[in-house]
Amino acid sequence: MVPHLTTALTGPLLELEKRFLDKETAIEQWLRGQWLDHAPPFYGSVDLRNAGYKLAPVDTNLFPGGFNNLNVAFLPLCVQAAMTAIEKVCPEAKRFLLIPENHTRNQFYLMNVARLALILRHAGIDVRVGSLLPEITAPTTLDLPDGQTLTLEPVKRIGPGGRRLGLDGFDPCSVLLNNDLSAGVPEILKDLDEQFVIPPLHAGWHARRKSRHFRAFQEVAIDFAREIGIDPWLINPEYEVCGKINFQERTGLECLASNVDALLYRIRAKYKQYGIEREPFVIVKADAGTYGMGIMTVKDASEVQDLNRKQRNKMAVVKEGLQVTEVIIQEGVPTVETVDEGTAEPVVYMIDRYVVGGFYRVNTQRGIDENLNAPGMTFKPLAFETGCSLPDAHLAPDAAPNRFYAYGVVARLALLAAAIELEETAITGTTGTP
Amino acid sequence: MVPHLTTALTGPLLELEKRFLDKETAIEQWLRGQWLDHAPPFYGSVDLRNAGYKLAPVDTNLFPGGFNNLNVAFLPLCVQAAMTAIEKVCPEAKRFLLIPENHTRNQFYLMNVARLALILRHAGIDVRVGSLLPEITAPTTLDLPDGQTLTLEPVKRIGPGGRRLGLDGFDPCSVLLNNDLSAGVPEILKDLDEQFVIPPLHAGWHARRKSRHFRAFQEVAIDFAREIGIDPWLINPEYEVCGKINFQERTGLECLASNVDALLYRIRAKYKQYGIEREPFVIVKADAGTYGMGIMTVKDASEVQDLNRKQRNKMAVVKEGLQVTEVIIQEGVPTVETVDEGTAEPVVYMIDRYVVGGFYRVNTQRGIDENLNAPGMTFKPLAFETGCSLPDAHLAPDAAPNRFYAYGVVARLALLAAAIELEETAITGTTGTP
Repeated sequence: MVPHLTTALTGPLLELEKRFLDKETAIEQWLRGQWLDHAPPFYGSVDLRNAGYKLAPVDTNLFPGGFNNLNVAFLPLCVQAAMTAIEKVCPEAKRFLLIPENHTRNQFYLMNVARLALILRHAGIDVRVGSLLPEITAPTTLDLPDGQTLTLEPVKRIGPGGRRLGLDGFDPCSVLLNNDLSAGVPEILKDLDEQFVIPPLHAGWHARRKSRHFRAFQEVAIDFAREIGIDPWLINPEYEVCGKINFQERTGLECLASNVDALLYRIRAKYKQYGIEREPFVIVKADAGTYGMGIMTVKDASEVQDLNRKQRNKMAVVKEGLQVTEVIIQEGVPTVETVDEGTAEPVVYMIDRYVVGGFYRVNTQRGIDENLNAPGMTFKPLAFETGCSLPDAHLAPDAAPNRFYAYGVVARLALLAAAIELEETAITGTTGTP
Repeated sequence: MVPHLTTALTGPLLELEKRFLDKETAIEQWLRGQWLDHAPPFYGSVDLRNAGYKLAPVDTNLFPGGFNNLNVAFLPLCVQAAMTAIEKVCPEAKRFLLIPENHTRNQFYLMNVARLALILRHAGIDVRVGSLLPEITAPTTLDLPDGQTLTLEPVKRIGPGGRRLGLDGFDPCSVLLNNDLSAGVPEILKDLDEQFVIPPLHAGWHARRKSRHFRAFQEVAIDFAREIGIDPWLINPEYEVCGKINFQERTGLECLASNVDALLYRIRAKYKQYGIEREPFVIVKADAGTYGMGIMTVKDASEVQDLNRKQRNKMAVVKEGLQVTEVIIQEGVPTVETVDEGTAEPVVYMIDRYVVGGFYRVNTQRGIDENLNAPGMTFKPLAFETGCSLPDAHLAPDAAPNRFYAYGVVARLALLAAAIELEETAITGTTGTP
């Protein structure tokens, strides 16, 4: 369970971690104040990149799929945080219907679902797992690699007028989504009556945009940076957006090229300011994409204009076969962390406003400037060995408890950005909410 | 850190633990509902007795003094629970003034204060420790056995009209008491203006009565027992009260003798019902006493009438030299747990409504039917090796995670009783509250 971290940490990030340590009380107070104004999502996970000179979130997931990767020693933290989350959202709730993704062949994902159900059960909820898959027409018990089993049951509309979602003989007070709704909100989830849907339907990827999240994150980062006296760039990945792209028909690629160019220029200026001797890069991603699909690393604007057919096809379609027309161009943040010869990036898990653990996504096939969340699960997870809430000022800033504290701080800033993003989309109605 | 438990558990307790396991979801739901109606105290600890046939609380402390005895692996649970507790009581609080007991020579207790301050700091609170001792006239730094230091500062009234409590240059939003107020509410704590006092002043032993707590516990136990279908006696220690006793003048001892007799009679009947072949005993304690003082074990009513001078003197006075006039006669619950040849009883720690750890109080000098919390700290603590929130139905009912879960359930019932007790005393005004 002990990660062999071989990071070469010198320079600004050590200073950043030291700043977090010195300002721990102020940071926790500031966050507590923010959570009074912004309700935290029920749960979430954040992918971080630790560049040595910068520690930034690169993706925030509101349907976390790796609870099984957390150190089991932190399970009590998950249970306690889930108790708090349930108390806030629906204190009188007794029954949750958990709706997972439709990957019944992904054993790792199914172990996540089983772990999540276990956490909720220990928090005092009757949990059953409802599948949206048409082929699940009767309760189906799957064997998992760790010896557990998971039973999927067909969901159906129940109650007077069929206005509630449930299972045969099971009328839940709440529906907990672990399905990111990439393909839109299925009819069966629409117009539910007096049932909580957690998170709200507009948290799905049919409605979310990475650019909206990172705009909210930028605001959060600026406020936070002012609070503790740092340059927001040290935690904020810069970005640009292009809204009308068709990779297959090669339209809109000029917008992409000019934005790539503009962003590379800004990164270069920052590198110069901090004396960072690296070649800048950007990551081009589908603005509504997820699951590590539709992502490429770009070091020069000419690359996006000269995409070959294979590259264009790869970028054109994401999960559930959706066409990509909007992309975000995000500052590339290299990872300097390696674990056992693999390139690693930390993923932090939260329930309510609490950090409940994390793991390293380790990929021996990929470079430090590439997406590690590659399709086909070539990564292996490595659980954090200690918690994220107990920094120790007597240790070096890069000692594990302090490193993990810093990860937990930046992850919570991203969670706060997600909370603000969800408030905004609830108001503007970019959503499929009932 | 691994306790060598040599309990001989057969019969009803195994059944009770099994019942708790089977009913985990229902238990957690029931508790969640109770906490909607009754605000949990900020923190508390409960001494339990595990008799093999019965698992019952014997004392509930609202100023817990052994945070240093908890397994450090559970520290993140303490921090997370403290974050929740603070959010409920005073979400905008930034500064806490912690008021400890006046035992500056008890190094174990001072380590508790240091640990408590550490937990609160990680939860995002500026904590300073204010002493009520007249000899602390300037900040005084004490060295602790574990290499830490603790600085005590003299408290004083500050602000316009001196209506707030603080330190030199420190105006706290809240005052956290870790002082049980046995000698009454000091003048300096009275009539504070717009400062939270946590727990409220009427939680002090100047106002609390064990009998009031156990009356509330009896109600809780009856409701809970109905919910999960058990005999409340399996978790509820029976008791009687005598209100007008003077041990030195030998008055009121007839009341004591007749109540001892009546209680022994009832216990004998229950023993017969459950086929328990033991000699019943009762514990006579000062109704307002604490700190393990003013306690005796009685097996026959004649014993209390024939007390010698030494025994009477011992019972007549408790902490802070207070005279004992009210006593509670509590069903004696023997402990069947021994750890490394010592007699052991579990102590469970809670912050807000969450169990955050526990330890065994182990005493090699005392028998299974005696008070283990003896003056002079002859006990040694032994931290629980696992948490209390993760029972595992695949293990035996007496496996550590399941045993500790059962302890956590009964401890939370006692905490709930304390919440109800505090509501009642707040209303009846038996208090020194401002």
